[in-house]
Amino acid sequence: MNAENYADETGRLERIVDFCRLIDREKFIQRRTYLTDGERFENDAEHAWHLAVMALLLSEYANEKVDVLKVMSIVLIHDLVEIYAGDTFAYDAEGLKTQKSRETAAAERLFSQLPEDLGDRLRSLWDEFESDDTPEAHFAHTLDNFQPMMLQAATDGKAWKEGGRKLSEVLHRNSRTSAGSEILWKYARTHFIAPQLRKGHLEMDIESL
Amino acid sequence: MNAENYADETGRLERIVDFCRLIDREKFIQRRTYLTDGERFENDAEHAWHLAVMALLLSEYANEKVDVLKVMSIVLIHDLVEIYAGDTFAYDAEGLKTQKSRETAAAERLFSQLPEDLGDRLRSLWDEFESDDTPEAHFAHTLDNFQPMMLQAATDGKAWKEGGRKLSEVLHRNSRTSAGSEILWKYARTHFIAPQLRKGHLEMDIESL
Repeated sequence: MNAENYADETGRLERIVDFCRLIDREKFIQRRTYLTDGERFENDAEHAWHLAVMALLLSEYANEKVDVLKVMSIVLIHDLVEIYAGDTFAYDAEGLKTQKSRETAAAERLFSQLPEDLGDRLRSLWDEFESDDTPEAHFAHTLDNFQPMMLQAATDGKAWKEGGRKLSEVLHRNSRTSAGSEILWKYARTHFIAPQLRKGHLEMDIESL
Repeated sequence: MNAENYADETGRLERIVDFCRLIDREKFIQRRTYLTDGERFENDAEHAWHLAVMALLLSEYANEKVDVLKVMSIVLIHDLVEIYAGDTFAYDAEGLKTQKSRETAAAERLFSQLPEDLGDRLRSLWDEFESDDTPEAHFAHTLDNFQPMMLQAATDGKAWKEGGRKLSEVLHRNSRTSAGSEILWKYARTHFIAPQLRKGHLEMDIESL
């Protein structure tokens, strides 16, 4: 496309740019994971960036061969619905009950602001992540679980300690982590979880058996 | 690769994960562009995330057909060298003089911490961005310039006003923006720059002619 076609396309481009401006709000959504300095929580945009770079560096460890562009696209946009639905803390049992319906409504509202073809494309990437039935979705979920555990370990389990987290909760949250990568899940158990259990920063409870 | 091969690969995986932990520092590097709330500056990780999503949404406007995976990979990692070299403000004439040598030294130090094949791959993406002689590098630079102007416009030119910026400086910084996309550069001139000139938030100087 060259500049001569520009006039016809202004409406389309304007909608896309409006969307790009809107998603700046992703940077204001706080998660409950401390950054490596242990001083402040990570936000959704930082988290998504980190996952995308990790997709580039770690995809060789996926159980099945993955399309890296698709994994990167999924992780970059997987939390956008939180602009309208808010972040649901992984250990908030009440919030988790309504999460699906709140996020589906948010997806409708959000992606319909794009030109239809692009809105459908982002919606389909988000649906794929939510359905979690492709190698790319599996691996995106693995990264989405692996990265915060890496930060937990880097801050000596600070958020786990503060939250009084139990091993059973962490294992429950990670019940599908091995579906994307057995190797990364094993690495997380030995390098991120076990040391914090030994130090008592994560409680070894009977329910974890 | 399956879990049985894991033992042989632990050293490699550990180096990659150490690198993934290290680059968390990207989130502490402040830029000089305000987020859309006008309250705080953007950091490098947020900026890279924003560019990567914009690569996904705006690549149809590139002058030449681009490999979207490559554009996304470039923008995701293009500022990593600042972990060691620091951010060089686009309007800091003194800093700009030493930027190239500081960043090249930083690239050596940074990417050599990865296993060689991955280090070479990231280094080659960064070199491509710096050399700016492929359609993907051109478009990555276009996004790298377009996104902060979009935020300037969203905050009514706040950082331009505070810095007493002149049109000639903004045009100089954008001297290559059209190389990646004439359409996005035209959009930026009409939607981001012109309104701030009209309001006097950016100074129309003779040098801009």
